[in-house]
Amino acid sequence: MALFQEVDYHQMTMEGVAARARVGKSTVYRWWSTKASLVIDAVDVALTAMRQGPIEVTGDSATVVRELVRRIVEAVASPAGRMIAAVSGDLRNDLAGQRQLAAMLGPHRAAGSSIVYALISRGDLPHDLDADLMLDLIAGTVLSRILLGRHPTPALVDQLTDLVLEGRLPRLSS
Amino acid sequence: MALFQEVDYHQMTMEGVAARARVGKSTVYRWWSTKASLVIDAVDVALTAMRQGPIEVTGDSATVVRELVRRIVEAVASPAGRMIAAVSGDLRNDLAGQRQLAAMLGPHRAAGSSIVYALISRGDLPHDLDADLMLDLIAGTVLSRILLGRHPTPALVDQLTDLVLEGRLPRLSS
Repeated sequence: MALFQEVDYHQMTMEGVAARARVGKSTVYRWWSTKASLVIDAVDVALTAMRQGPIEVTGDSATVVRELVRRIVEAVASPAGRMIAAVSGDLRNDLAGQRQLAAMLGPHRAAGSSIVYALISRGDLPHDLDADLMLDLIAGTVLSRILLGRHPTPALVDQLTDLVLEGRLPRLSS
Repeated sequence: MALFQEVDYHQMTMEGVAARARVGKSTVYRWWSTKASLVIDAVDVALTAMRQGPIEVTGDSATVVRELVRRIVEAVASPAGRMIAAVSGDLRNDLAGQRQLAAMLGPHRAAGSSIVYALISRGDLPHDLDADLMLDLIAGTVLSRILLGRHPTPALVDQLTDLVLEGRLPRLSS
């Protein structure tokens, strides 16, 4: 976890992890057969540590959606979130790793989906909304910005909130 | 370029590139000081080779937008597109590489922006649309799907087209 704050995926090595944990390299390999596998587990721990308690779906829908968007932006832009894009580049020929990544992300995404479903059941969002794709729209947009070196701003949270609530396409701020 | 079809970013090495090009490793390093730098240039060549000629903004806007979305989906889902996410994991502490990536992607994104601006000038899209963020919405959504191991479908192209044209949030197909 400490290494996450310092290095990128490429610079992270099993040797480096072993040294930081003051164990032998073979000990690290006993638990994780690949670097990707280790990083996916570490991302899981980091995302879990970032959890901020449930979003209460009681107030107005704008407040709820903005908080959901804000948390997704925060998670994707975090060191752990950025590792997800990096590790994916290591999984093209690693089916077990692909499955591990999808299984790891599932519960974290479910936290977001449950909010979307609560908003649907209140009638704040369309009953046949593709909640899963909705989350990809939000998370993916942030990811795309980050890949291009642009850190997400509060204005981006507003733009994505308006998109979810009103289908309002993003406008240039005046 | 041949290696792109076979290996993921992690498996690609300067040694492997040198061997395939039948040159010495030092020759590769003479042109590219890092693997990231080499891959970014290769992605540029691959994306350029994928170009399919201009999209004529003459027909109905749905046709134009669908074609734009289709091309973005195709580019992001291609081996070159997937390399972009992977290489980004290598750039956290490499400012020159970050700049190289942004500079490389600029012209490819401009091809998409020009279509969006043409649609704006015809009145098919709002005059104050954030064209750049619009492209991130499309490309990022596809990227997010791919990271989760789900290959984009024709239905996704339809869903994103409806979002751009009508602000219609993605629905579950019935």
